Amino acid sequence: MTRMMFDLCADGDIRFSPYCWRARMALAHKGLEASFLPVGFSAIAEATEGFSKTVPVLVDGEAKVADSWEIASYLETAYPDRPSLFDGDSGRNLTKFVEQWANIALHPPILKAIIVDVHDRLLPEDKAYFRESREKRLRAPLEEVQAAREDHRKALKVALLPLRQLLHQQPFFGGDAPRFVDYIVFGSLQWPRLMSDFPLIPDDDPVADWFSRCLDLFDGLGRNAG
Amino acid sequence: MTRMMFDLCADGDIRFSPYCWRARMALAHKGLEASFLPVGFSAIAEATEGFSKTVPVLVDGEAKVADSWEIASYLETAYPDRPSLFDGDSGRNLTKFVEQWANIALHPPILKAIIVDVHDRLLPEDKAYFRESREKRLRAPLEEVQAAREDHRKALKVALLPLRQLLHQQPFFGGDAPRFVDYIVFGSLQWPRLMSDFPLIPDDDPVADWFSRCLDLFDGLGRNAG
Repeated sequence: MTRMMFDLCADGDIRFSPYCWRARMALAHKGLEASFLPVGFSAIAEATEGFSKTVPVLVDGEAKVADSWEIASYLETAYPDRPSLFDGDSGRNLTKFVEQWANIALHPPILKAIIVDVHDRLLPEDKAYFRESREKRLRAPLEEVQAAREDHRKALKVALLPLRQLLHQQPFFGGDAPRFVDYIVFGSLQWPRLMSDFPLIPDDDPVADWFSRCLDLFDGLGRNAG
Repeated sequence: MTRMMFDLCADGDIRFSPYCWRARMALAHKGLEASFLPVGFSAIAEATEGFSKTVPVLVDGEAKVADSWEIASYLETAYPDRPSLFDGDSGRNLTKFVEQWANIALHPPILKAIIVDVHDRLLPEDKAYFRESREKRLRAPLEEVQAAREDHRKALKVALLPLRQLLHQQPFFGGDAPRFVDYIVFGSLQWPRLMSDFPLIPDDDPVADWFSRCLDLFDGLGRNAG
């Protein structure tokens, strides 16, 4: 098999990256098998021979694609006869908006609520890089950021409101069945599920029900991880 | 002509409702003419003979539809040969998400930044209802809410970030051409444009360029109002 994806890993081979999960679910949606090569933050550039500083990176025969959005777009074009990830151009455009929304509105409160937990579960050689880069970005020690985790959890609850409202009306973000738009937010929530024991979403939240449905997809691909 | 829409109005016949603008732009997108009957907050129930407490309400021959989302859905089904508002089921589902996002993430900071201005421009008979209902909801006098308008403007700027990012890549929310998803946010911004002189969006914001493109649509339908 020539299809392979570089996949971010933490200590104990936990595959935790929200972006890698988006790409992995997209591959599963298309029914495409691949191997998933673990790589830590510090080893990405060398592993990809300078091709990318971030993962996921997909190598598919002759094709080499970095970035989860680009990978989904590549798969949609390269495998048009497989189930669609976007359901047309309009679906694709609006999915792009949801990607921005997830990264901008969801990721900051998620990360801040679990940032020490994430640090503690990383590979030993990645910890210094993670602490330094994130403390610079957030302008505070990781411990201080996570100490306000109740506030971050509340912020996430508010940020998820548009999705919560939507899920009162349909089982998946994409409608009756999951699309790439589901995998985007799934990846965002798989990340804290795998890297922290702090419960971010209450069990009685429609978002929790939807997330559970996503964990069951593809024979429990997401649930069986971690 | 039997097609008519009840349309919220302020003093001087300003048609300012974000929801009514969404429906009005949807009608124009479908190339459907209609008359737009002005009605104040206090007169809706009587004008619609108890059919709805809110506008827009569309009367199209035998059909009578309340709520801008329901109106767009009705038009898409009733006029399938006219230009599509959603471009398929996936586009429709994600547009529904954007509607929630606009109402939840954009409307609170917009309203709070201009709430006294809105009050002052309403029909005389609507002012007491507006002040009482909004002060109850916001738990503060309108004047106190609007006094923090710089904070609300900043909150709106942050909330618009996912759309701003998207507009770096495509001219309209819906892609190369406008769809109902554009009219949703257009309505949200037409509201402060018509009811306040407070500049909410800086001229150099890509959102301002996009809004200007929307104002030009349908021979300047939005620009010619107010």
